[in-house]
Amino acid sequence: MSDLNRQWLLRARPQGQLSLDDFEYREEPAPDAPLAAGEVRIRNVVFLCAPTMRNWMDPPGNSFYPSVPLGSPVMAPAVGRVVASNNPEFAVGDRVSSISTWQDYATVAATNLRKPTKLPDGISFVDALGRFGLNPLTAYFGLLEVGQPQAGETLVVSGAAGSTGSTVCQIGRIKGLRVVGIAGGADKCAWLTDACGIDAAIDYKHENVEARLAELCPNGIDVFFDNVGGDILQAAVNNMAPKGRIVLCGQISSYDAGEQPEGPRNMMRLIYGSIRMEGFLCGNYAAEFPRAVADLKAWHEAGKIVYREDLHVGFDQLPAAFMTLFRGANQGTLLVAVDEAEARATR
Amino acid sequence: MSDLNRQWLLRARPQGQLSLDDFEYREEPAPDAPLAAGEVRIRNVVFLCAPTMRNWMDPPGNSFYPSVPLGSPVMAPAVGRVVASNNPEFAVGDRVSSISTWQDYATVAATNLRKPTKLPDGISFVDALGRFGLNPLTAYFGLLEVGQPQAGETLVVSGAAGSTGSTVCQIGRIKGLRVVGIAGGADKCAWLTDACGIDAAIDYKHENVEARLAELCPNGIDVFFDNVGGDILQAAVNNMAPKGRIVLCGQISSYDAGEQPEGPRNMMRLIYGSIRMEGFLCGNYAAEFPRAVADLKAWHEAGKIVYREDLHVGFDQLPAAFMTLFRGANQGTLLVAVDEAEARATR
Repeated sequence: MSDLNRQWLLRARPQGQLSLDDFEYREEPAPDAPLAAGEVRIRNVVFLCAPTMRNWMDPPGNSFYPSVPLGSPVMAPAVGRVVASNNPEFAVGDRVSSISTWQDYATVAATNLRKPTKLPDGISFVDALGRFGLNPLTAYFGLLEVGQPQAGETLVVSGAAGSTGSTVCQIGRIKGLRVVGIAGGADKCAWLTDACGIDAAIDYKHENVEARLAELCPNGIDVFFDNVGGDILQAAVNNMAPKGRIVLCGQISSYDAGEQPEGPRNMMRLIYGSIRMEGFLCGNYAAEFPRAVADLKAWHEAGKIVYREDLHVGFDQLPAAFMTLFRGANQGTLLVAVDEAEARATR
Repeated sequence: MSDLNRQWLLRARPQGQLSLDDFEYREEPAPDAPLAAGEVRIRNVVFLCAPTMRNWMDPPGNSFYPSVPLGSPVMAPAVGRVVASNNPEFAVGDRVSSISTWQDYATVAATNLRKPTKLPDGISFVDALGRFGLNPLTAYFGLLEVGQPQAGETLVVSGAAGSTGSTVCQIGRIKGLRVVGIAGGADKCAWLTDACGIDAAIDYKHENVEARLAELCPNGIDVFFDNVGGDILQAAVNNMAPKGRIVLCGQISSYDAGEQPEGPRNMMRLIYGSIRMEGFLCGNYAAEFPRAVADLKAWHEAGKIVYREDLHVGFDQLPAAFMTLFRGANQGTLLVAVDEAEARATR
């Protein structure tokens, strides 16, 4: 805890690959201004680094998602503790999850669309943001609600060794699907087949993805869960089964390339294959989060889900940690804790 | 009727724009070989010219649709009369609809996927293929089953003055949607608003489609029914409402351009907008055709649907008539009758 408010601001719009120079560190006094009606002030304890935050750093113009103003703290999912409240639903000391910003203290109007939600007792800050947070919830609803898989079908997952992707793979396995993961490098592929128990993995750095998909999915891909986009999406489109479903979760291959991610180059396959391609946001399913968390908890307790945490410690680590996402360098759910002991507290 | 079997063969794979030289006329004796078990021989009476037939002329390689072999008659939906049968389900004289080929006499295995279906009495050959044929059925199931529109929503239709598009527009109007059509030229636009009764039309030849969509759909497009693809699809993607649905029916803008139709250039809009883009084939709904034909019949009888027939007469007209589809030149459902009097027979 500190009586300073440390911040990481967006100094410049990233051009192509992210650079530490895109961010600027600043300290200001911890805020003590009175809160307006409905507002709460949160001291952030753990931040999630999610690839899609890269999109929020782009210039305004996409009406569907926000653009962090230059000179403002970077937007990020986080968990923390309420330190002041002018809202009857939140008391000082409450542990909450919110879409916050890279600073120690964030003041939010608890009546807006991104209203914070309280963490259940017994789950640590890191687990609330990681094991049961945005990434596994995205995996859960994307696969089961958007993908509508049937037992025995073939599921292909790109970015399969990532935090979201590895959960998709394992929920797929639990639901009786044949699962093929696409990841970068032999280590990640071995982890997917050996630890996560999926049927096969394709190393996109050393294998021809389209040809391998054709070999591994002779009857076509029924559900493709895409975190990557670009050439890997194209390879999947070329191998979809009739009435296949493409779950559009992310397009990380182009976030850091300074260009907009493009769709498939042969739309007639979508038409003649009766293929559905559908984007979604985890937040669409907010009302159903408790059911998903209950399922995830049961699977974790039964040892059915392998989970890796990639915890960085120290507020100063935020930009550097975030950047590892785009080099394929990190393994596991990427979290940055302000203080590790507090981050593991369960109430 | 003739004791010749006239044929139009695919002489060459069209390179870009279709040419009469891509086709070759041939006459052979009418077939009289004995039929194998299950086969029927059909004398074709009317052929439908549908844009997607252009795709079937491409080289093999798209596993989802057929490629007409070079030197073989061009594949086309048609209606005709059974002249010989070795199948207990079909008698000589039966009137049937089938995916046939450009020739007087086609012999088909009635047990295959494209099994012919009998025409109901009281509906002429031309109406079975036009008013109640593939195009309006495609419009009906694409809009209602794939698009899942809700009354009060905004529907945008590309290729709106075409046979399928104009039916989509009018079913949309009947179902209580706000309907905006996109078509080429002031005449087509005036016909859409004045005769078809839709709310607004955009002339893509003389207006900025993306800007006009933004003006006409201030709350975004809920359902986009796309017959065209390319820049018009992109303009619609940029104006979709959250949770909007894109019904992929055709991509006519690129069929004749010698290149594969590409998807949208900004996939993040699909993700953040929770937008669904879905291809379909009318045949997916074959079991429900009777319900659709009953609805279409009721709407026609109540004067709720304006319908235009573009009937060319003469087997020799087939290639030239087909080519008018790609110049935006034809108005109405494009049919080629071998003999007009017979084409109007209702039993």
